[in-house]
Amino acid sequence: MERAGGARGLAEAGLGGGGESGVPAAGAVAAVLPAGGCGERLGGPTPKQFCPVLGRPLISYTLQALQRVSWIKDIVVAVTSENMDMMAAIVQRYRHQRVTLVEAGTTRHRSIFNGLKALAGDHPHSRLPTPTVVIIHDAVRPFVEEDVLASVVAAARDHGAAGAIRPLVSTVITPSADGCLEQSLDRAKHRASEMPQAFLFDVIYRAYCQCSDHDMEFGTECLHLALKYCHTKAKLVDGSPDLWKVTYKRDLYAMESIIKDKISQQICVVADTEEDAECIAFLQGLLKKELEVQGTSVTLCPNGQDLQKIILGDCYNFVCINMKNSDFRPPRQLLAGLASAAPSPFYPVAVVSVYFLDSQNVSLSEKMKEVMEMKDFAKEVKKQNVFFYGVLIHFPQDNPQQLQEHVRQGASIVASLIKDRNAGLVGQLLIA
Amino acid sequence: MERAGGARGLAEAGLGGGGESGVPAAGAVAAVLPAGGCGERLGGPTPKQFCPVLGRPLISYTLQALQRVSWIKDIVVAVTSENMDMMAAIVQRYRHQRVTLVEAGTTRHRSIFNGLKALAGDHPHSRLPTPTVVIIHDAVRPFVEEDVLASVVAAARDHGAAGAIRPLVSTVITPSADGCLEQSLDRAKHRASEMPQAFLFDVIYRAYCQCSDHDMEFGTECLHLALKYCHTKAKLVDGSPDLWKVTYKRDLYAMESIIKDKISQQICVVADTEEDAECIAFLQGLLKKELEVQGTSVTLCPNGQDLQKIILGDCYNFVCINMKNSDFRPPRQLLAGLASAAPSPFYPVAVVSVYFLDSQNVSLSEKMKEVMEMKDFAKEVKKQNVFFYGVLIHFPQDNPQQLQEHVRQGASIVASLIKDRNAGLVGQLLIA
Ligand SMILES: [Mg+2]
Ligand SMILES: [Mg+2]
Repeated sequence: MERAGGARGLAEAGLGGGGESGVPAAGAVAAVLPAGGCGERLGGPTPKQFCPVLGRPLISYTLQALQRVSWIKDIVVAVTSENMDMMAAIVQRYRHQRVTLVEAGTTRHRSIFNGLKALAGDHPHSRLPTPTVVIIHDAVRPFVEEDVLASVVAAARDHGAAGAIRPLVSTVITPSADGCLEQSLDRAKHRASEMPQAFLFDVIYRAYCQCSDHDMEFGTECLHLALKYCHTKAKLVDGSPDLWKVTYKRDLYAMESIIKDKISQQICVVADTEEDAECIAFLQGLLKKELEVQGTSVTLCPNGQDLQKIILGDCYNFVCINMKNSDFRPPRQLLAGLASAAPSPFYPVAVVSVYFLDSQNVSLSEKMKEVMEMKDFAKEVKKQNVFFYGVLIHFPQDNPQQLQEHVRQGASIVASLIKDRNAGLVGQLLIA
Repeated sequence: MERAGGARGLAEAGLGGGGESGVPAAGAVAAVLPAGGCGERLGGPTPKQFCPVLGRPLISYTLQALQRVSWIKDIVVAVTSENMDMMAAIVQRYRHQRVTLVEAGTTRHRSIFNGLKALAGDHPHSRLPTPTVVIIHDAVRPFVEEDVLASVVAAARDHGAAGAIRPLVSTVITPSADGCLEQSLDRAKHRASEMPQAFLFDVIYRAYCQCSDHDMEFGTECLHLALKYCHTKAKLVDGSPDLWKVTYKRDLYAMESIIKDKISQQICVVADTEEDAECIAFLQGLLKKELEVQGTSVTLCPNGQDLQKIILGDCYNFVCINMKNSDFRPPRQLLAGLASAAPSPFYPVAVVSVYFLDSQNVSLSEKMKEVMEMKDFAKEVKKQNVFFYGVLIHFPQDNPQQLQEHVRQGASIVASLIKDRNAGLVGQLLIA
């Protein structure tokens, strides 16, 4: 067993102790995440919990969802020995906090049991304080929210066990031995058992200690073990559709689109001048409409501290308006600030630099040099997970009424770039 | 009841009669598609079967999947009266064949019954020949393949009823009255009942004629009605994961990505010259690798008939190599051919024009004019569902060894454009 990242001190300093939100402070809460699966349903060689989504492994999103809940004191992840190094590197790279890695067993139940042993006071290999309540969650359900975690934990304190459920999407049937319909179950009387689940630690640990080899081998359901071995009837808690399990390749696609949607909701507009406020406001209004965003802000060349705040406020989009000059210069100051504020952000940050140009009497060769430099620059900052694009708003000086129409087109292009976040198009100068 | 599109003759002429593939010709097959749902799970105002996916309503994809199976003689779609006109317009716009629209009932079962009545020999409102076997499918399962349709039809001929099943993804549980776990069902002993299903027409029509109001109101499962009213035990047929039902917004995202993947598998490279074959072959090889495509072909300025063949061969991507001149001229001949070959294609066609240019001694103003014309042109052809993009491969004459590196970058940009098929970036000139 190893303590990955060693970021516990950091996390506790940063996020404070438990009890301040949702869940009462009566006894600590930990989480166990079995992540030993081999992902045969995806067809590829990579187990699904390690598949990249916008460049980051799926399991890192799940850890992110758990670690932002400050009252979860420890997160124990069970991974196979062959994936141990990769998992430790993920924890380090994305600075995951309060995470401990243990070795997975040969089945899901054995992996969970290994996770519980690391938390058990009476077990020789335990290293961590024993919690009152333990959450069990899947590595491949990345969108779990604090409210459902709080609900299952509260219900587990009262009932000994609790789990999230969902209505059935399909009718469940019983086949006969010869592959024919024996009966259809009444959909209204049954539910799908999902994750997260939570247990009084004593209940689930006792259940696993008594568990038969057959249950360890073929069972999948922790609630069932608590019922069978401890006679604990779990409280069932309605979960949201977000709890769905990433199972097939299509689920990875869906997850990527959901995240792209989510991180396109906030834009920070950065201007290099306080003049031309009208034009900037016009562009900002268009962007807000195009992206159906929840928030935009305008700021003048933010410094490192401002950027830190903006990114912590879940803003991953910067639109830089260059009014003062007509060179295609990338916003180096902003990008240096971004690199120091968030050395390895959870999501790719989109930076779109908008230039205004009248092409009259300019040599293409000269501009082409600037365009090629922009591409080199973009390649460089992509290593910091910053996707840099340029947008040129072309307006001939002798035809100023075209400006508004071109700004409109420009806004539409900026919106497309932010929504799509296409890694293959970084460094491009799009033209409106 | 109305016969939409009236394209029956066309379809039969084009695709031939039944019996030539998979299913034996013993009696005709029809399909009923209940599409009266209101899609509350998606949250939006549009019922999910009408939600656009790459610009085309979801139900059109499902119709496409059914109509390409030539032995399905009639497709009866049940839609609410308020959506009747929209549905008729969809059938017409995408030239769906063998489709008849009937009015949906207030529940799924009532909609299916209305569809069956249109096919029933003894019913006053029937208009169509009565089939031996009827397929019932969901409007929101667009990826149904001919093999599973053939399997359920064959099984229905033998057993009277048949339906596709899938393994359960979640454990199914029974809650007690107070919301606690009563029991977990053994996942190995149960299955999810999916669509398509198929029935001897007499069996399912008799079942619906006897069906109680309660079943009509609250039931969802046709297999159950056949069992209850006709004592017909359906044969269960293993289905593929593709049969999944588009239920949530995330499923629309997944569907869009799957289709984008699918239509990026074939590229047609069009060259304006037979010279420079080496450079063209180099670019083609790179594209093949970047897109992991199954097929590429090279052709010299194809005519309308060639294009028709290429598009029928499921190719939706054209890369035009312009070697002979250095103007940014769009491939007008190709695009005119595309417009006449496929006036309303099922998918957006991506056309990427690749130009080679040394920027020395060229005025930006002059080139900018060409770039703006390219944008106008792209806007025009987008109306025909053609997404046109330009890629400029920049290489200074005094540094010819840069060409290979720039072609490499160009291929990567072309691949990104084809994969993403971003509607907001049409008409852009990307630079390598
Ligand atoms: Mg201990
Ligand atoms: Mg008739």
